[in-house]
This record gives sequence, C-alpha cells and structure tokens, in this order.
Amino acid sequence: MTDLLHIDGLIAPRSVAVIGASEDVTRIGGRPIAAMLRAGYAGHILPVNPKRDTVQGLPCFASVDDLPMIPDAALIAVPAKLVPETIEALGQKGCKAATLFSAGFAEVGEAGETAQRQLVTLARRHGMRILGPNTLGVYNVDIGYYGTFSSSLDTGYPRPGNIGIASQSGAFGAHLGALARDRGLGCSVLITTGNEADITVAEAIRWMAESDGTDVICTYMEAINDAPALLAALDVARAKGKPVLAIKSGRSAVGARAAASHTASLTGDAMVADAVLSEHGVVILRDPETMMDIAYAASKMIFPTRHSLGIVTVSGGAGIVASDEAERVGLPMPAMPDKAQAALRQALPYASPVNPLDCTAQALNDPSLLELFTRSGLEEGGYGAVLCFLTYVAGSKAMTEVILETMAPLRAAYPDRIIAFCALGAPEVLARYDDAGILVFNDPCRAVRALDAVLRHGADQAHGATFLQPEARPVTLPQGTPDEAQAKALLAKAGIAAAPELAVTSAEAAVLAAEAFGYPVVMKILSPDILHKSDIGAVKLNIANACAVREAYDTILSAAQAHALDAAVTGVLVAKQLSGGIECLMGIHRDPTFGPVAVFGLGGIFVEVLNDVSLRACPFGPEVAREMILSIRSAAILRGARGQTPADIDALAQMLSRLSVFAAGAGERLVSIDLNPVLAMPKGQGAFALDAVIELDRQEVAEHAH
Amino acid sequence: MTDLLHIDGLIAPRSVAVIGASEDVTRIGGRPIAAMLRAGYAGHILPVNPKRDTVQGLPCFASVDDLPMIPDAALIAVPAKLVPETIEALGQKGCKAATLFSAGFAEVGEAGETAQRQLVTLARRHGMRILGPNTLGVYNVDIGYYGTFSSSLDTGYPRPGNIGIASQSGAFGAHLGALARDRGLGCSVLITTGNEADITVAEAIRWMAESDGTDVICTYMEAINDAPALLAALDVARAKGKPVLAIKSGRSAVGARAAASHTASLTGDAMVADAVLSEHGVVILRDPETMMDIAYAASKMIFPTRHSLGIVTVSGGAGIVASDEAERVGLPMPAMPDKAQAALRQALPYASPVNPLDCTAQALNDPSLLELFTRSGLEEGGYGAVLCFLTYVAGSKAMTEVILETMAPLRAAYPDRIIAFCALGAPEVLARYDDAGILVFNDPCRAVRALDAVLRHGADQAHGATFLQPEARPVTLPQGTPDEAQAKALLAKAGIAAAPELAVTSAEAAVLAAEAFGYPVVMKILSPDILHKSDIGAVKLNIANACAVREAYDTILSAAQAHALDAAVTGVLVAKQLSGGIECLMGIHRDPTFGPVAVFGLGGIFVEVLNDVSLRACPFGPEVAREMILSIRSAAILRGARGQTPADIDALAQMLSRLSVFAAGAGERLVSIDLNPVLAMPKGQGAFALDAVIELDRQEVAEHAH
Repeated sequence: MTDLLHIDGLIAPRSVAVIGASEDVTRIGGRPIAAMLRAGYAGHILPVNPKRDTVQGLPCFASVDDLPMIPDAALIAVPAKLVPETIEALGQKGCKAATLFSAGFAEVGEAGETAQRQLVTLARRHGMRILGPNTLGVYNVDIGYYGTFSSSLDTGYPRPGNIGIASQSGAFGAHLGALARDRGLGCSVLITTGNEADITVAEAIRWMAESDGTDVICTYMEAINDAPALLAALDVARAKGKPVLAIKSGRSAVGARAAASHTASLTGDAMVADAVLSEHGVVILRDPETMMDIAYAASKMIFPTRHSLGIVTVSGGAGIVASDEAERVGLPMPAMPDKAQAALRQALPYASPVNPLDCTAQALNDPSLLELFTRSGLEEGGYGAVLCFLTYVAGSKAMTEVILETMAPLRAAYPDRIIAFCALGAPEVLARYDDAGILVFNDPCRAVRALDAVLRHGADQAHGATFLQPEARPVTLPQGTPDEAQAKALLAKAGIAAAPELAVTSAEAAVLAAEAFGYPVVMKILSPDILHKSDIGAVKLNIANACAVREAYDTILSAAQAHALDAAVTGVLVAKQLSGGIECLMGIHRDPTFGPVAVFGLGGIFVEVLNDVSLRACPFGPEVAREMILSIRSAAILRGARGQTPADIDALAQMLSRLSVFAAGAGERLVSIDLNPVLAMPKGQGAFALDAVIELDRQEVAEHAH
Repeated sequence: MTDLLHIDGLIAPRSVAVIGASEDVTRIGGRPIAAMLRAGYAGHILPVNPKRDTVQGLPCFASVDDLPMIPDAALIAVPAKLVPETIEALGQKGCKAATLFSAGFAEVGEAGETAQRQLVTLARRHGMRILGPNTLGVYNVDIGYYGTFSSSLDTGYPRPGNIGIASQSGAFGAHLGALARDRGLGCSVLITTGNEADITVAEAIRWMAESDGTDVICTYMEAINDAPALLAALDVARAKGKPVLAIKSGRSAVGARAAASHTASLTGDAMVADAVLSEHGVVILRDPETMMDIAYAASKMIFPTRHSLGIVTVSGGAGIVASDEAERVGLPMPAMPDKAQAALRQALPYASPVNPLDCTAQALNDPSLLELFTRSGLEEGGYGAVLCFLTYVAGSKAMTEVILETMAPLRAAYPDRIIAFCALGAPEVLARYDDAGILVFNDPCRAVRALDAVLRHGADQAHGATFLQPEARPVTLPQGTPDEAQAKALLAKAGIAAAPELAVTSAEAAVLAAEAFGYPVVMKILSPDILHKSDIGAVKLNIANACAVREAYDTILSAAQAHALDAAVTGVLVAKQLSGGIECLMGIHRDPTFGPVAVFGLGGIFVEVLNDVSLRACPFGPEVAREMILSIRSAAILRGARGQTPADIDALAQMLSRLSVFAAGAGERLVSIDLNPVLAMPKGQGAFALDAVIELDRQEVAEHAH
C-alpha cells in the first residue's frame, strides 16, 4: 500500500522538480516544462539547473537542496553519470518518486545493468520509487501533468477521457496515445516504464485498476518482468470490471528457443503468456488499431450481459459480410423469434427479418423502419448489441437529424445495450451519433470484432464462473531423477493412476506379475538414465504368455546394456496392456515467467505435427482442466467423433488437475513431467498414464547434497 | 467481342436516354441527371417523360420514339410493368445497352423471375445488353457519367483514379466507392450488377481488365452466376498484371448445406470458391477496409518481384509488433547481410540492424539515419518493400520537410520498390508523403497486410509458374453405377492404380486369387447397391490362409444378404493386403458453380474432425497436384514427420492429377468419386487406391435410356 501511494505521487503529483531543466523547449529537460505550462498544470513546477535563474519564465533552483519544498515527483533529465548523485540529493530532500528519462543503463550492456541495480538500491534506501530509466515518462491528462518529453505532443495534446495506457516501450505507448487522440478518444494517463528497474507495467496496470479516472486499460508488454504482480493487477482490474487490452509482442520468436524437455518444446513463451493472460481476463491483440477500436467501444461503459449480436442493414450484402465475420470470431447471431419476424414482415413485406435484419434501402425513405427493426432486435431479439449498417446514408447531412431523432429515444430506452452504426461521412457528422451514445465504426468487420470483445467482457463479468483454485500442498521430491516406476509411484500418491504394474528384477517375478494382471502385458526397462526406451528396443508390447515374458525380460536387459554399459538399471516394469482408449499427452514444464505450466493434447501427430495443445498455469481445478481439454481443435475425437464411444473426459480432467496441483507443490526443482501417452478409456472407465518421465533440476540436487 | 462493345456503350456512353426522367433530384429518375449535370458529363443527356417539356433545364422528349438520336445507353426508371414496352421501344430505336433501375423482378419471387427472363429474351432480339434489373447502376468518373441513383453522391463525388469496383450488391458497391473517396483514393468506375439477368460481375471484371482506366479491380460477389466467364475474366486481369481483390460473401452458410456424397460434405461452396478463385490469382478478403488498404497500395502500380519486407523503425516495440504480423501472414523478413549490419552499427552503435532495423529515436535528431537505414534495406537487404515506422514523428510539421527532402532521392533511386510509412498526423500532412510516392498507413499491422498482398502479386507476376493444364479426353462411363471392381477397372484405364485384385464368384476362385497375390489378403462384397460395405460386415481384413478365405467368402455373402435381400451382388473382390503406407483420401465432387472439384486429405480424423483438406477445380497437372498435397496442414506426415519414411508424394501427385483429368473428361453424369483410403507407400513404392466408389447421376442414366 505504501508502494502504491508512492506511485500516486509519481503519476498524479502536486509538485514536480525538473532536474536538468532547459530553456530550450525541444530538449528533454525543456519539453515537459513547456508541455505542463501549455496544458495548465495546476501543481508546482520546480526547475533545477545551476546555470540559470529562470527557466521558461519560472524561477529556477541551483540544486535539489535549494528547492523550497519537497516535490511529490522529480523528472531526471541529466546524463547517466550524474543520476546517482541526483537520486541521493532527492532522497535526502525527501522526494519519494523519480522519473528517469536518462538513458545509458541496462539497455547498453553489463556495466549499465550494474549501474541500474545500484540506482535501485540507492533509491530504496530513501524509500523512493523509480520509473525508468530510459523511460519516455508519464502523462496525466486530467491534471495537465506532462512528465514526458514525447514529441507526440508536437502534433496535439491528448483529450481527457477514461482510457489509460501502460507501455514498456515509450515510442509505442506514445503511438497508442496519439492514435487515440487522432481518433477523438479520451485518455486518462500514459505510463511508459522503459527499463523497468523498479516500477513495471504490472504496477502501472494496478494503479489504473485502482484509481478512478481510468475505466479501460490498454497495455503493451515485451518481457513480463514480474508475473505474480501482473496477475494480481489483472485480477484487481477484473474485480473492478475494467477491461484490460494487451499487445504482447515477440511472438515471432516462438519456436526459436531451445527447450529442455519434450513437453516444453510444444509450448513456447508466447503461447504460455496468451494462455495465462487470457485466463486472467486479458483481451490479447496483435495490432494497435484493433486495440483502439475495442477501447473506444469499451469506453462507453456499457457491458451487456448477453454475448449476442443483431445486425440491422440497408444492404443485404453488407449484412452477409458482417455476419460472416461474426461467425468467424465466434459472436453468436441468434435468429429473431418467429412472432417478431412476422411483425417485421408485415411492416415491410420484402424485408428479411431473421438476423441479419434487412430493412432494405426502403429505410432511406422511411427512417422509422430503421427504428422499428432496431427496437425489435433489442426487445424481441434481446441482443446484447445491435449494429446498424447505414454506410454513407448516415453521413448525409439531410439524414442525420432524422436518424438522430428516431434513434435517440431507443438509446434512452435500452441503456444496458449497445447500439452501433457502421457509417461513412465527415467526422463532425459522425461525431453527432457518438455524442448521442451510439458507437460509430467505418468498417462493418472492425465493428463486429470490437463489439465481440466488449460483449465477451460483459458476459464474463455477468456469468464468469470463478472456479476455486485448488491449494497446492508441498510435495517431497526424491534426491535423484526417478525411474518410471518411481515416477508413477510419486504421481499415484497425488491421485494420478497408471495401468496396474509392478517393477521386477527377475524373469520369474515378471511372469508372476503378468499372470496376476492377465495377458497381454507390456514390459519396459527401468532406468533413470534411459529416457527414450522404445528407441533402443527396451519396450515390448503384446506379450501374450509366460514364455514370451521370459524372452522379453532377457531381450530388454540386453538392449539396455547394448545401449549404455554404465546405465543404472533398476529392473524391468511389467504392466497390464490396456487397449481401446484414446491416446493423449499431459505434461508440465517450468515457464521462466509463469512457473509450472500444464499442457494437454492428443497423442503423436496431433501434438507434434499440428501443435494442437492447450496450456494453463498451475494449479487449477477439474472444471478448468475440463475446459482446457475441450479447447483443443481435435476435442471432437474425445467427445466421440466418427461413431466412437466418448472418452472419459471427467477422469482426464481429474488427472490433469491433480497433475497441476502436484506441479505447483513440487517447487522449483521440478523441470518437467511428461505423461505420454495417457490412455483415456471410454466414458466411466478412467484414464491411465502409460508412461511417466519426471525431470528434476540436477544442479539443485547437488546443492541440496551439500 | 461484340458483347464487349455493347458493354462499352453501357459503361462509357456518349449519349444516354433517361426513361422516366424526373425534375425531382431526390427521385430515381432525377438523381442521375442531376449528378451528370453536376459532374459535367460531356455526352448527351436525353430525358424521356411524356408529361414534361424540360427536365432539370434539359429538353425532354415525350417517348423513346421521339429521341433525336440513337442513345448509346438508356437508364430505365419506370415501374416494372412498363419495362417490357420500354425495352421494346429502345430496341426498335436501335439502343444497345440499358441499365434497369426498376425493381420487382427475380428478387420478388417466381412471377418476377419469369418476367425477368422474358425481358432478356426481348432484349436479345434487339441485340441489346441489360444491366440489372434492380441495379443501383454504373458510374464512370473520368467522363463524369453517373448512370446511378446512389445516395452516396449526397456526401461527395468520387475522385478520378485507377481503382475499379464491380459489385452484385448496389449498396455494398457504393459503400466501397464511398470508402475509397473518404480515404482520398481515386476510382475509375463502379458497376453494380443487381439481379444479373444478363450482365454479371464476371463481365464487369472483364471490361475493367481490358480497358485502360482501371489498374486495380475490387469486386463483391454473392452467387457466382457464370463461372467460366468469371475465370476467363480473371485470367485476362492476371495477364494484364491487374490485381483482383474480392469479397465473396456467404461464408457462414458453409457446412449448412446438404451434400450428396461423403467427399462433397468435406468441401462446401465457400471453400471451393476460395480455392478456385485463389488459383486464378484473386486476393480473397473478408472486410472492405482491408480491400481498400490493398487497393491503395496496388494503385501505385509498383509490384516488386521479391516477396520480402524490411522494417525500419524509431521504436523497437513497433518493429517487433510489425514483425510478428509479418510472420503471421507469411511475409518473409530476411536478415540484413552481415556486412551491411556492420556498416549500420558503425553509423549508430546501439542500433539493431538485423531486420527490423531499429534506428532508434536518434533518427528524430538526425533524419539522415532514417535515409541510411532505408537505403541499406533497399540496396543491401534487397527487400521488395521497406516499411518505416515513424508514427507521430512523420506527422509533425517541423519534420515533414526534412523527411521529404531526405527520402525523395531514395524514392527516385528505387522506382521498382515500395517505400511505405506508418505515420500519424493531419491528413494534409500525410498526403504530402503520398504525393511523393510513399505509401502511408496509420497502423503497422494493416500496412504489413497490405504490403504482403501487393508483394505476393508482384512475385506471382514475376515468377508465377504457369503449369500446362492437361487436356481432358472424353471418358465413357457405364450405364449403371459401377461396383468397386468396375470402378477400379475404369480408373485403371486412366492410370490410377489399385492393389492387385480380382473379382471372383466362387470360394475356390477366391483361394486361387489369394495364393497368386500372396497372403494376407482382403475380401469385400461387390455390389453397386451396397456403398458402406464395412458397416454391414461385408469386408474382411488380414485373411491369412486358404481356409480363412473360404470362411470369409461365405460370411461376406451372408452379410450382404442379411443387409438387403434384393441387393445386386456381382461377386467378391479378393485383393492383396498392402501395409506400411500412409492412408490418404482423394475424391471428386461436382460443385454446382465450378464443376468437378478434386479434394485431397489424410485419412480419417484429419479430414473428418480437422477438415484438413485442399481443393482444386479439375483438370490439373501433377505439379499442381503436388502443391495441393503439400498445402494441407498435416503435410509434414507425408514428408516423413516423427522419423518415418517419407511417402511417395510423386505417385500421389500423379494419381491425383490423373483423377482430375478423368473427372473433367467424364462429363456431367459424374456426381462424385471417393478413393478412400488411398495408401501412399514409402517413397518410390507408389500409391494405391484401396477402395473406389463412383457415383453417377441416375436421372441422366434414365434419360439416356429413353
């Protein structure tokens, strides 16, 4: 909480010292002062520069010491080498928040990184928070605070509004701000975090989530430097009902990074980030324009509870194009009730009143038709949003008044629903609809995409089931890497079932085990040193009788010896051979950002060729596991495609949830788990791990041994 | 050719009669006259209205008969019931082209459809071509011809330019025109075809492809009413190097339509249309805005031969976001050569000169860096296009001159390459870059998508291999539906191999056949009346000896009898059982629009659950078949994923091509062919159809029998 107070001083200061203040309004030390003067910042601007008495008409102070008050915030625009003494002086003065424009730290290599760490230590000593270094700064539109040197202000100032932006990249954040402004959208704050030595995007999101002026949060992230803080911030935003729209860049690196275990190679950071952030309610986007489309729609703060769209159109063609897009993005367009259809058909015989509702060009002659169709969509259709395709008709000055007059009562009558126009025309004409509370888009497909996001947010807020997150209990891991039997035993304690099996050390014991399970059986080598058992011929399937068991026992041991004389062999595993199920894969891998992440997919080709997997951060309950299982593209196979019996999805979900709880409890030594295959038996008959590999961090083992 | 001349009169008339001319400029008969007067149409406007002497200041004629000249074109704005006599009068006068605004024909049901057909017959008798009925008309910007009553003109007139639009939907076509105008893009013509009683979008595209004023063709289609004409028009456009951008609506109906055969159920009209149109060079789009983005980029007529992108950026973040998008759409961004990287690093030590080329905010202080990085991308990088992310920097008036001065020589030095900016700012500022030949986009991702399309077009024009289309020779089909053996024999003549097999009618003959092939063998019922043989137990696999052959023979016959006593059974098929290959599926289905279409996919789940198939119109050669095979998502499996031997893709390609030639030669009676499975053996060992079902049209058989 203390931390957040400090950030408040940084983003909404009542006084700001500018260290390295400049008379030149194009320089880093001059731009913020000029901007604040121009914007009418009501706080105190305190320029500091030993060489001047005044700066841009303000009294200037020779040093931080000389300041007549303790500033809420400081802007530091001095060369890197002078930054430490500046921080020290500010700290002694009692300033608790500094924005460091200065570059030349972590971004220039190791020496800079060390200097940056030292800055943070220094600031901490004084209880001071730091934004940057290498940041473009902050602005806070409502109070006219421009703690930034962004040249985006050269082309105009932001309008006040409820869209907040947090960006690691300064230029990209300012681009978003300028984009919003050029579209006529209002912003609350822009916070760019630069090198994130101290304050991260996570904290900026948290501030926006908790403060009053921001209702929609836009963010741009590259690395995620503080995952727990980010997830906590997202959860606050969600609880407050504020949508978070994010561009997480660096997707094209996916697949290029080496990954330690097989399962890890399937995931890749971007996929993990997408999965985890989506789970916390984030709308993940690729381009700035779509972000602003959604921010615009969300900024009206109407979040209908139903995720459904009605389209009213004066052009049959446009209605179809928009409907195609709705289907593509998964926005439902239910048909109108029969009775309502009949009523509309009576009003306009050649209308197509199903959905899209085509009121034809006739609506140009009789705008009451537009009203009638839209009202019916809202009332009888019950759609969360109605999009009216009016194109240039709405842009004609002659029509504007008529349309506004007809639609305004409707807008008032359905305050909890969205009414949007797809319209072309002069900006000042279209602004009139926007002023009347009607969303305006140029493109029908962009409108559909933006509405979909806002409607999803509303439905999520209204119906979003919040599943209890299971508690992870500490798991005791063995010292060394477990062999398959040990791995299965460990997982069995966590409630994860394997096929009936026994580890044996003689051919006769193998026969006894096989006869107890019933034939056929499977036999495999047990060795923590041999990971790819089948590749070396140390796995035998379809073993049908005692004689074959004995033969397999010998063959497997010889194969293992031939492979590696020094491999530690702990025995042979005899397992009942199950059949008739569907092969799946479950795994865990430790993501450097989000910790243990579970992966699920169908076996073999589906995962390796089609990369058809779903991911979640651990731990999670069986409901989430179920969603995860059913979200893969090939889920139809588990559901019983091609006339087959449906698989035991409940058992799979239990197993996956338990695996996630196990992984969360296992701590940092757990590198990966690979259950491949897991056999999902027909519904009611369970799911069984047929193989299990647990990889532990050897380094840590060594350390524990000390 | 005569037809095209007539269309010329319709689109670029030197004189136009307006039947039903009105003094009221808001009425259908008044709008075109007002628009032409305002636009300064240089031809003769000839109003016809028995009740008036003048219309909008022009002399008005009482009837078509009274016209002082034969008009090149007529606009018909009279009620439906008066249309036939108007056509007759115009025909007698010698007019060869009429645009029918009048509604009340095919769109209102069967009676209207009949009336519409009669109109065409009537017009044909006079050698007259008809646009519409129920059309919004045509405009031709260069000559100021506005044969349209579109109210899009109420918000402004189109600018002259080289983008042509053909649309079935009037309102949607006019929306595209207004969108282009509002973005400052220039148009040549808008042709809306309405009910397409005579002139279709295909003919409109052909006209634009062949006439001089249009360089980029935008089209909106719902139904494709004349596929051969459309494909011919597309091929003309391609030969002339004019890109065709299309929105084909009605995708959400995909899957809802019933399909006659199993293979047909996999395709669906929209998929077929996409496949066929893409093959003919069409860029298929979903939304109007992307269409205009690409049209804008293409309208500059620079089509580089290399499909590669360099990104120069002042923001590292934006560079990554744009690169992510390039990877997503498949636009290559090769790295800069090492030597060039070293040179750029020397010019700007902290630059990241790989690609994206990050010239950092330093380029704001020193715009020569922007020039240097862009030049290096064009020269050493050799990129087809260089996109510079300059955001609000380029929009600042202070920077505009400097940037223009720096970049103009570069623009001149690389006339065959695209230079594009991502920039924010006032329209008049951004227009200056556009005037200098630099493309301007607001959004980096939209820029990437538009550049990708234009670069693909350029590469296609430069390197597009035009494969010889094999000639289809007539195929003689049997009278009745062939059984499996007959189907295979028919296909064998076309060079399509099955496994060694023999049709037998006794158990002993079956044993002899099996011993000749070698065990194991497969046995199946032969009956044209039983399509799903395995479902009724009339297929036996893994038959290992003579005794089992005899048993199988009896079982199969009993199963067939049990299934249907009256099924015509022609015998039992004995085939060598092949193994070790990869199961694929090939098929043909007759698309109502494009005729026989071939489909290829991997067997089972891949097709049925993942719908992972590729499609082509028949016939095509083995090179095209190879492309088609390798374009499925799961092609890696054929290529040898998971350490398996690659499949004999050459043999598959030969088979698929031969199947397409067979289908093209078979004529209209062929409904479908289903080769499922086809076993693709390891490379060099061939591909074999293990089952074959040929479905013929029974109706036609009956007719032939008459």
